Amino acid sequence: MHVLHMNKGEGETSYAKNSQLQKKIISVGCSMTEAAIFNILLEVQPKSMGIADLGCSSGPNSLTAVSKIIHMVDAASQRMGLPVPELRVSLNDLPGNDFNDVFKSLAGLYKNIKNNYGIESCYVSGLPGSFYGRLFPTESLHFVHSSSSLHWLSQVPLGLQPNVGTHLNKDKVYISKSSSMSVIKAYQKQFHEDFSLFLKSRAKEMGSKGRMVLSFMGRRSPDPCADEACYQWELLARALMSLALDGFVEKEKIDSFNAPYYAPSPEEVKHEVENEGSFVMDGVDAFEIEWDDGDSSDLKLSSGNRVAKTIRAVVEPMLESHFRLGPEIMDELFRRYSNIIDDCFSETKFKYVNLVISFMRN
Amino acid sequence: MHVLHMNKGEGETSYAKNSQLQKKIISVGCSMTEAAIFNILLEVQPKSMGIADLGCSSGPNSLTAVSKIIHMVDAASQRMGLPVPELRVSLNDLPGNDFNDVFKSLAGLYKNIKNNYGIESCYVSGLPGSFYGRLFPTESLHFVHSSSSLHWLSQVPLGLQPNVGTHLNKDKVYISKSSSMSVIKAYQKQFHEDFSLFLKSRAKEMGSKGRMVLSFMGRRSPDPCADEACYQWELLARALMSLALDGFVEKEKIDSFNAPYYAPSPEEVKHEVENEGSFVMDGVDAFEIEWDDGDSSDLKLSSGNRVAKTIRAVVEPMLESHFRLGPEIMDELFRRYSNIIDDCFSETKFKYVNLVISFMRN
Repeated sequence: MHVLHMNKGEGETSYAKNSQLQKKIISVGCSMTEAAIFNILLEVQPKSMGIADLGCSSGPNSLTAVSKIIHMVDAASQRMGLPVPELRVSLNDLPGNDFNDVFKSLAGLYKNIKNNYGIESCYVSGLPGSFYGRLFPTESLHFVHSSSSLHWLSQVPLGLQPNVGTHLNKDKVYISKSSSMSVIKAYQKQFHEDFSLFLKSRAKEMGSKGRMVLSFMGRRSPDPCADEACYQWELLARALMSLALDGFVEKEKIDSFNAPYYAPSPEEVKHEVENEGSFVMDGVDAFEIEWDDGDSSDLKLSSGNRVAKTIRAVVEPMLESHFRLGPEIMDELFRRYSNIIDDCFSETKFKYVNLVISFMRN
Repeated sequence: MHVLHMNKGEGETSYAKNSQLQKKIISVGCSMTEAAIFNILLEVQPKSMGIADLGCSSGPNSLTAVSKIIHMVDAASQRMGLPVPELRVSLNDLPGNDFNDVFKSLAGLYKNIKNNYGIESCYVSGLPGSFYGRLFPTESLHFVHSSSSLHWLSQVPLGLQPNVGTHLNKDKVYISKSSSMSVIKAYQKQFHEDFSLFLKSRAKEMGSKGRMVLSFMGRRSPDPCADEACYQWELLARALMSLALDGFVEKEKIDSFNAPYYAPSPEEVKHEVENEGSFVMDGVDAFEIEWDDGDSSDLKLSSGNRVAKTIRAVVEPMLESHFRLGPEIMDELFRRYSNIIDDCFSETKFKYVNLVISFMRN
C-alpha cells in the first residue's frame, strides 16, 4: 500500500506538474455531482453537511473537487432559498499522501469561499487511511466524492503477487488479451472484495438519502481485455520487455509484476451494489478521454511524450519499488514507452473510458 | 504566525529530539483530564464522543495526549459499565505543523488501541488552523485538551511589533522587571483578546457539559514580572545583548523583538472566563517544573545546556525569522545562553509554573 502514491515534489516528473488529465476528469463528473448535491439539500436539508473527498491527492488538484462542491452547495442553496449549511469537509488519501502540501492551500480556499459566497462556516480536515475500510464516524456524511482513485485496488490480486512460485501473467503487467482466465478471475475477485468493502464502509458512514458520486477508469465493454481497459498497460509491458531484451531489466521481474488496478464495467459495479444492498445506482456516464488529453501546456511535445508523462507521474513509485531501476533506466523506460505510443497513435487515437456513477444511500 | 512552529526534522536541535519537558507536562495534567472524561461519560453519555487536542505538534509527543485520553475513556467506561463510545478525534495545530509526520504514527495508535482495549471505532483527523478562532463544527466536541500551546499569543502585542517607530521594550524580549507599564499593558491586552476569542470559539464548538483541560506556562504570582513567569526570557535577552556587545547582533534588532508569549495567572484566566460566560472553571493546579527537568537522557550535559536545548527547539524559528542569524551565531547564542543559565543555577534552581485548568461548558 505504501507505494500507492503519486510522484512527489514539484519536479519535471512530479504529479503536481503532470495531473492535468485528472483535473479534466474532475470537471467531467460535475453535472452528476451538481444533481446529487441538489437532491441532498432538497431531501435532507442538513443544518450541517458532511462532505468527503476520497483520494484527494496533493498538488494543484487536491482542493479542486472540494472547491467545486462548495460552489455547488452555495448555488443550490440559493436556488432553493435555503441558507447554506455548515460544511464539514474531510479530505482523505493514504497516509503517504503529502497532506502538508494540501493544508498549505487551505487558507486560499477559505479566503475564496468567504469572498465569493460569504461562507464562513466551513471546517476542512485531513483524514488519512484506505477507503477500503471504515474511515469516518457513523452516519456523519451526506456526500461522498471520489475521482481518479477507485481504479486502484487495495493490493495486487492474490495469486498474482510477486512472491508466488509460478508467474501466471508472464510478459504482462495487467490483464491482457493473452492473459489466462485465472489472471482475469484473480483481478475480478480482488475488485469484488475491495468494492464490496468500500460500499459496506460507506454505507455505515452515510445517512439515509446521502449521495455518492464516484469517477474512475473503467470500460464500456463487458470484456475485461478490451483495449479501452488495458491498452496503456499493454504498451507499458511492451516498453519493459524491450528493456529486458537489451538486458536493462530482468524478464523475471516483469513476469512477477502486476499492477494493483482494475477498470470495471458498469455492470460489474452494479452487481456489487445490488449484492451489498445499501445503495441504489441512479446514474451512470461513460466518458471517453483521449490518452493525450489534459496536458495542453506543452503542445510541442509529441502525443506519446505527453501520455508517458501523465502515466509516469502516477505509476513510477510502484515501478520503482518493484523493479529498482536507476534514474537513467527509468528515463529510458518512459522514452521507449513514449515512442511506442507515438507509433500506435499514427493509426488510432487511443482513449480511456472514465466512468462517473451516482449512488443514493437507501 | 508562520514562524510559530517548533524546530523541524530530526536533527540535534529539532523539537522531535528535545521535547521531553513537554512530554512531562502532558503527564502532569493527567488527573484533571481523567476527572473531566469521567464526568463527560457520566453526565452526557455520548454515543459518539468528539475529542480535540489543540497544538498537537509533531514528533514523539504528537499522539501522547490522545493516547492517554483514549486510555482514560476506556478505563472510565469500564468502571461505569458503559460501552466505549465511538471516538472522533481531531488533531489541531497551525498549518505549518508537520502533519505528515503525525499521520505516519497513526497506524501504530490504531493498532495499539485495538490490541489493548479492543477499540475499533476511532477516527482520527488532522485539522490545521489557529485555535484563536473557530476550528470545529458547531457543538461537535465533548472534550478539548491542550498542552504547552496556549502560552503562545496569536501575534506580538500591538505597539510592540518590530515595525513600530519607538521601541518600548529596549534590551528585552519579553516582560521584564525593567519594562514600563505600557509594555505590560500591551501584553495583557493581547492575552485578553486572544483568550476571550479562544473561549468564544470553543463555546460554540462544544456541547453542554463538555469539558476542557488546558495546560500551559503561567505564574502563581499576581505580578507579571515575577521570575517564575519571565526569567527564561530575561536570560535569553542577556545572551542576545552579549552578542550585540561583540558586534554579532544589532542592538536595534533586540529592541524591536518581543516574543508572542504570555504567562498568565489563574486570576487573569478566571477573569476572562467570567467575562465570556460560557464556561465555569472547576479546577486549577499550578505545578512547578525545574527548568532542566525532562531531559534525563543526557545527564552528562550541564543543566544550562539541557535548558538551552529545550528552549532552542521551540524558539529558534522565531529568532531565526527576526534576527536572521547565521547557523554559527545561532549556535553561539545558545552556548552563551547555556553558560548564563549555569551561572544562575549555581545559586538557585529556577522553575517554571505550569498551570493546568479544567473548565466545564454551561
